[in-house]
Amino acid sequence: MPHIALPSGIPGIRSLLAFRPETAGPLTDLANVLLRAPNALTAAERELIAAHVSARNQCEFCHNSHAAIAACYLGDEALVAHVVRDPETAPVSDKMKALLALAGRVQESGKAVRHDDVARARNAGATDTEIHDTVLIAAAFSMYNRYVDGLGAWTPDDSEGYRQRARLVTEHGYAGPPVDVAQPARG
Amino acid sequence: MPHIALPSGIPGIRSLLAFRPETAGPLTDLANVLLRAPNALTAAERELIAAHVSARNQCEFCHNSHAAIAACYLGDEALVAHVVRDPETAPVSDKMKALLALAGRVQESGKAVRHDDVARARNAGATDTEIHDTVLIAAAFSMYNRYVDGLGAWTPDDSEGYRQRARLVTEHGYAGPPVDVAQPARG
Repeated sequence: MPHIALPSGIPGIRSLLAFRPETAGPLTDLANVLLRAPNALTAAERELIAAHVSARNQCEFCHNSHAAIAACYLGDEALVAHVVRDPETAPVSDKMKALLALAGRVQESGKAVRHDDVARARNAGATDTEIHDTVLIAAAFSMYNRYVDGLGAWTPDDSEGYRQRARLVTEHGYAGPPVDVAQPARG
Repeated sequence: MPHIALPSGIPGIRSLLAFRPETAGPLTDLANVLLRAPNALTAAERELIAAHVSARNQCEFCHNSHAAIAACYLGDEALVAHVVRDPETAPVSDKMKALLALAGRVQESGKAVRHDDVARARNAGATDTEIHDTVLIAAAFSMYNRYVDGLGAWTPDDSEGYRQRARLVTEHGYAGPPVDVAQPARG
């Protein structure tokens, strides 16, 4: 049950974007530049960071959404579930393990990041821009997660809805109208 | 010592905005719409929420910056310090006490927000939009704080520099070039 009168039938953050169009613009622009724009990190890698942070924050809507988008890019839901749950044992590069560990520190607190965390990423081949973007993605999901759960936005529990939405996002990005036909209406 | 090669002589988040102009746009737009745009909450009230969350996150740069901006609007540094440190005993309205308490919950986690927290704000006269904006300001500073400290951005410790910058922000907003004459260069 949302804490404020959100438009019904729209899941998660999109109900908040519809409620307050003035803030929807920069929030959507930020998601697109962080997760979609050309980057040395692939879109799938950036979505894995977003999903990992969201899972650590126990934000089911963002966790489900970004895990589904990563899986849509990679074609492998089991791999994504493994990376999100336990990056250190997952079959990803040492650089991705280091960046996911760094993202986990940021999820705790900006103060929790140690030089060793950054050195590990750099030693595994990460550039300053990749380190910057990893920290900002983790910080941004510390915002999106709090926004969604802090207002009690509706979190559907049907996996197929998240898969359908993921296909739309991988094709069209995060911009676009908050309501579309790919999410089931609230029953 | 910053964790990445940031431009020298620029304090805090502005060094990060200069490092990565692609993300600076939406981050600055978000700050302006949340803290500066016309709103039922005054700019001072919104800056108090930002400063309170930043203090709880122990982000000295954002705490000092937004406390100075709130004090510039209100003309009372002691009042701002009291509100930021302990809203419940500060001479502010019951509505502001409730909104600051709500912001504190969001700083902990989106999941920490209880219906009682929102009901307290509503009973004190807060509208749904004010509740929404309080949650989003608190969530956004959970991002900005992690961004600044997660990358070890330079945090000056001279109060006069923060006061000078606050005067610029209250006059011109958060947009504008990341470098200006009102902050001392790094020594």
